[in-house]
Amino acid sequence: MRDPVRYAMIGGGEGAFIGPVHRTAAAIAGNCRLVAGALSSDPERARRSGAACGLEEARSYASYQEMLDAERALPEGQRAEFVAIVTPNHVHAPAAIAALEAGFPVLTDKPLTDTLDAALAIAEAAARTGALVGITHTYTGYPMVKQARDLVASGDFGPVRRVAVRYTQGWLAKAEDSVGKQAEWRVDPSRSGLAGAFGDIGTHAFNLVEFITGERMTRLSAEIRAAVHGRRLDDDGAAMFHLEGGARGTLVASQICTGDSNGLEISVWCEEAGLHWRQEQPNSLRVARRGRPEEIWTPGADRSYLGATAMAATRLPSGHPEGYLEAFANIYHDFAEAVRGRVPASPSYASLEDGIAGMRFIQAAYDSSARGAEWLDLSGDMT
Amino acid sequence: MRDPVRYAMIGGGEGAFIGPVHRTAAAIAGNCRLVAGALSSDPERARRSGAACGLEEARSYASYQEMLDAERALPEGQRAEFVAIVTPNHVHAPAAIAALEAGFPVLTDKPLTDTLDAALAIAEAAARTGALVGITHTYTGYPMVKQARDLVASGDFGPVRRVAVRYTQGWLAKAEDSVGKQAEWRVDPSRSGLAGAFGDIGTHAFNLVEFITGERMTRLSAEIRAAVHGRRLDDDGAAMFHLEGGARGTLVASQICTGDSNGLEISVWCEEAGLHWRQEQPNSLRVARRGRPEEIWTPGADRSYLGATAMAATRLPSGHPEGYLEAFANIYHDFAEAVRGRVPASPSYASLEDGIAGMRFIQAAYDSSARGAEWLDLSGDMT
Amino acid sequence: MRDPVRYAMIGGGEGAFIGPVHRTAAAIAGNCRLVAGALSSDPERARRSGAACGLEEARSYASYQEMLDAERALPEGQRAEFVAIVTPNHVHAPAAIAALEAGFPVLTDKPLTDTLDAALAIAEAAARTGALVGITHTYTGYPMVKQARDLVASGDFGPVRRVAVRYTQGWLAKAEDSVGKQAEWRVDPSRSGLAGAFGDIGTHAFNLVEFITGERMTRLSAEIRAAVHGRRLDDDGAAMFHLEGGARGTLVASQICTGDSNGLEISVWCEEAGLHWRQEQPNSLRVARRGRPEEIWTPGADRSYLGATAMAATRLPSGHPEGYLEAFANIYHDFAEAVRGRVPASPSYASLEDGIAGMRFIQAAYDSSARGAEWLDLSGDMT
Amino acid sequence: MRDPVRYAMIGGGEGAFIGPVHRTAAAIAGNCRLVAGALSSDPERARRSGAACGLEEARSYASYQEMLDAERALPEGQRAEFVAIVTPNHVHAPAAIAALEAGFPVLTDKPLTDTLDAALAIAEAAARTGALVGITHTYTGYPMVKQARDLVASGDFGPVRRVAVRYTQGWLAKAEDSVGKQAEWRVDPSRSGLAGAFGDIGTHAFNLVEFITGERMTRLSAEIRAAVHGRRLDDDGAAMFHLEGGARGTLVASQICTGDSNGLEISVWCEEAGLHWRQEQPNSLRVARRGRPEEIWTPGADRSYLGATAMAATRLPSGHPEGYLEAFANIYHDFAEAVRGRVPASPSYASLEDGIAGMRFIQAAYDSSARGAEWLDLSGDMT
Repeated sequence: MRDPVRYAMIGGGEGAFIGPVHRTAAAIAGNCRLVAGALSSDPERARRSGAACGLEEARSYASYQEMLDAERALPEGQRAEFVAIVTPNHVHAPAAIAALEAGFPVLTDKPLTDTLDAALAIAEAAARTGALVGITHTYTGYPMVKQARDLVASGDFGPVRRVAVRYTQGWLAKAEDSVGKQAEWRVDPSRSGLAGAFGDIGTHAFNLVEFITGERMTRLSAEIRAAVHGRRLDDDGAAMFHLEGGARGTLVASQICTGDSNGLEISVWCEEAGLHWRQEQPNSLRVARRGRPEEIWTPGADRSYLGATAMAATRLPSGHPEGYLEAFANIYHDFAEAVRGRVPASPSYASLEDGIAGMRFIQAAYDSSARGAEWLDLSGDMT
Repeated sequence: MRDPVRYAMIGGGEGAFIGPVHRTAAAIAGNCRLVAGALSSDPERARRSGAACGLEEARSYASYQEMLDAERALPEGQRAEFVAIVTPNHVHAPAAIAALEAGFPVLTDKPLTDTLDAALAIAEAAARTGALVGITHTYTGYPMVKQARDLVASGDFGPVRRVAVRYTQGWLAKAEDSVGKQAEWRVDPSRSGLAGAFGDIGTHAFNLVEFITGERMTRLSAEIRAAVHGRRLDDDGAAMFHLEGGARGTLVASQICTGDSNGLEISVWCEEAGLHWRQEQPNSLRVARRGRPEEIWTPGADRSYLGATAMAATRLPSGHPEGYLEAFANIYHDFAEAVRGRVPASPSYASLEDGIAGMRFIQAAYDSSARGAEWLDLSGDMT
Repeated sequence: MRDPVRYAMIGGGEGAFIGPVHRTAAAIAGNCRLVAGALSSDPERARRSGAACGLEEARSYASYQEMLDAERALPEGQRAEFVAIVTPNHVHAPAAIAALEAGFPVLTDKPLTDTLDAALAIAEAAARTGALVGITHTYTGYPMVKQARDLVASGDFGPVRRVAVRYTQGWLAKAEDSVGKQAEWRVDPSRSGLAGAFGDIGTHAFNLVEFITGERMTRLSAEIRAAVHGRRLDDDGAAMFHLEGGARGTLVASQICTGDSNGLEISVWCEEAGLHWRQEQPNSLRVARRGRPEEIWTPGADRSYLGATAMAATRLPSGHPEGYLEAFANIYHDFAEAVRGRVPASPSYASLEDGIAGMRFIQAAYDSSARGAEWLDLSGDMT
Repeated sequence: MRDPVRYAMIGGGEGAFIGPVHRTAAAIAGNCRLVAGALSSDPERARRSGAACGLEEARSYASYQEMLDAERALPEGQRAEFVAIVTPNHVHAPAAIAALEAGFPVLTDKPLTDTLDAALAIAEAAARTGALVGITHTYTGYPMVKQARDLVASGDFGPVRRVAVRYTQGWLAKAEDSVGKQAEWRVDPSRSGLAGAFGDIGTHAFNLVEFITGERMTRLSAEIRAAVHGRRLDDDGAAMFHLEGGARGTLVASQICTGDSNGLEISVWCEEAGLHWRQEQPNSLRVARRGRPEEIWTPGADRSYLGATAMAATRLPSGHPEGYLEAFANIYHDFAEAVRGRVPASPSYASLEDGIAGMRFIQAAYDSSARGAEWLDLSGDMT
């Protein structure tokens, strides 16, 4: 905390869900400090929100452009060192590009943008300015997810052969659920983008597959749909897919799975062992090796069997549960370190390339579904 | 036990897995008695096996045809009242047809046959002779599976919208696993039929979906493959599917999922609640209703909240675990009752129609996969 | 089944809970056959019950004494080879002594008797006649309980240091629960003996501790009480205890734990590892070694890591759940083998010595509680 | 955060475990700010630790007395508003009394002190000065623990009849474990007080019982011991106890339970339902009502079935796990609110009275054990 990395936030004002999550995560991270914000597109709401967050009045701005201009003008030791973007999806690209062009690294919520074109425009701006971009795919911040990635990467378990991932929620199960600040923009194509559930949570599932296996998804066949009558964006879908190493997989992403809360779970079967993780019990990684009793790996500073990456993402002794906010904190921690030039070996945040892969996934799922679940390639040139 | 239903068995001699399971299940059922057998196609082995099972020497036959002829000739109060078939798949049809033509009801292991044509030939014989046919899809014998079916059927939970089923095992994960009596015929197309894992366990998953939802699967897109080099039948695959009521689903069936034992699990999401069941913890049915704490339903004679069907399938007080053999026993029990004309309202065994649906599923999965996961209809006329 | 061991049953007629459990267990065991019975002390009910069990009319007797006399008179190859006793507790001793004196080995339900004196009288008869006595402490028939015992016995985990066992049920939680055939005799001192819950289920917990640790309990301090107003026997209690090797433990036995079904669970902490088992999930043994991920051991014929004792108690491949009846079947199996002179190395049934230890436990718990939870020794000379 | 409550910290410098936990908890709470500290009794270490925590150099003090004097002299809008004490136990009382006498409310880690006399001295100082004292019994900050308390308090479940609580850890399982900053003072009577494990974690278990049941413990019989050769304080023990309403209970507290991490778990059986909670899965409260399926209650802003207290302690939507730090944050949050005069209806922190009850528990357990587990009363007059 001696010299925390200063950051500014775009979006996340009154009534937002993910804005406070980012701010608390940064507080837990211990190496970041919120110094500026354009917390709402409504100037009065932005002002009130800034005050509630403890921002100095002068650094609570009415718009992100105003903020970027003002912060850029501040002395180096005062101005924000990176910008966090927590708006609805359609604002990610303009805000990120403006920030990058103003010289600020950008940490944005997922998915990267509302459209693949917008994502590629960010990539273009990042390439031009050389500034760092990260995406907060929360779940890669969990120590046991990192451990799973390390176990696969070690090669000891042999090649990945099958993956099953699902991300099921029930909060949009009924037509009347599509109200309220959280739901409204998520079911509105002009703010969310092409995809609803597949964009909102399908990309998390997709990213988790690529993160743990260390492989890119190469092809998919998807069926997505609005199961609730009258909705304009998908709220339910599934896909079969291939990974670059030859593994096959299934992915379900749905927000109409009544009774489910935040049901992200993944199984990765390698030739010598299976790995199983559920977000709602994030401190357990089941490792099932051929011919041996199943093992339950858990985090903790006293767990000598864990790899360095998982250890670094753990802040408590074993048996003291860490949760969603701590996972998120790891993302902020690693991004702030990277902003100062200390890029972790295996960072918790998703890279720009990962984010673009996510957008290709959304686009391909949408297109495949529109063509009767035709198999489509996900590969694409990155500009 | 007063007057148990007498049955004869074809197959299931020395070294078999499923034969002893059938016989123990029948013993638990309490209303059946094994009185005759043609337990092996090898006459000497048949003799030894019959002796080991406690059969009278005269009723331990060298071939099923010999057995059917001899049993038919016995007085009504002595001869077998039904025939259980526990051979490799390719023998199901000739044995079943012979038994039906000899006037015996038939209870056969799953899948119904090795090919759809063979299944239709059984149907033809059954139609001609009017004799009952049942298939032992073990998992529909579990009380909590029956309870799940009842809960969906009640309509209180609204329409089914999504299903996820998977049946993952690891026992064929490596090339060297394809040895031994159990493995050999399962990886041999001439004895198993078109499909390997999709026939052996995929049909269980398929049947469970149809049983719990009470709906037929109408369309599917499948990818199946032999993941282990050199295998001639699929050992790994997945499908997306539609149910007749509009629900969508995913199905995984694989025998190369290292570390998994007998990992059959299913989630059925209806509009008002989700239902979740895992075969390896069969005495728990998770019921997650909208806006309520998740509930864990468990069997037991003292569970007043259970429906009549689940209660009838339970033989112990709550907290006394029942397992695979008891589920299987329920199938025998119900079939034996039906043979005596007391057909249960919701029998534990699968019907001939269910079995043919299973064969259409295998055929469609195989065809779909061969055509690049093309969507195919499962519907067909039953002769 | 070639030549099953013939047994006769005392008690367990119409309306009984444990009688049918014994008979089904014997059927699963596969090496026993019920040939005679005195299934009720009411002659007409005994007759009806015998018929329902498929007994020959001539071998369905009106009283156990009549049965013992008649069976003894039968030729060696026909007469019962052992006697199973499944009556209320107060009948165990007279029936067992009569059977022993008639030359029959005795397998009796638990607890051994209603009083310690009665237990010692059985011991005296057994010593005099040389006939085998076994007690059906069901839970020692589970493969994972046997595995736990083997792991402790191996010495690899070091000495036992602490034990926590509890057996909590809720079926007698209210005054109105003490009705019905099952409840009535269990709350009646003249039929149950000194202790209610401590006799009925506390002895199971006690026996499980001694079975897994391989050590005798040497001292205890207990508090037992009738928590439900008006009951004459304890329905709720707890104890602290010492084992002979110096370990300390706690034991809870209660039938007023509302919401619990058959909640027997035990933790045994050795110096190098902890072992944890719950009867309601009997196919999982948690093994937590110092400095290693926790392991979940499960039964199955394909589990090469299991010891011979657990393997011998398993009849299905891994992932196919076995339950209470299969555990009970292991007890019948092992006792029947022993009757034929093939005593297993680690039999599933409790020995006479174990049964007497259980009676000393009940007596000591009762006495300790009556004296304000005074610490009492459990040791005693066996006559 | 607008106007956070300023606090100062005593102890918790370099190498401490619980100091950073308090500070992170306060950061998550969002309504507190660390403004001053005397973080070590070693002045140089205090200075370094203060810098690492981001304290202004002037407010990083070399001793707590220096800090109290200096802070008291600051203007009202600047000086610390409460003092957090996170030293080894023997420093709690002198530091707390000094802080109270300087006019500061005190939030101290548990147990309240090293001796009962010291605790009564704090009570005397608090009574004299009128300043608030709170104790951080972490586990009462969990939403599901609060919900459990509310459910019992509602009366709907009837009177409490039995409690089983255990707190088992394995980190001191071997003699060589008693090294390192964390372990050393915990096994040293001059710094920990009378009791080792019973003081360190037994008091947590005790407090949890009183918190959830809303009843005081009135009597106990305990056996505590140093199981590891050469240790001077207990590392393992158990007790039987009575609650004021007539319920009976068992308590195990041990730090030699190899393989266990932070195994605090509690069952509370009321007449109409049982409640079960495990700290390592803190987001699940099992509620088992008579005659109904067991329910799993989970936190979340969208859980309309939760009471106001649990809701107020929850910061994320359901399915987003909160852990140990968030529970701790609730304690800081509530204490800071109380400092500003907004005492919550059911505060997360333990009261001074609760803390003294904890000290009486330690004293009684120690005395009981010394007298052969004699039953002792816990009641006492509070000065």
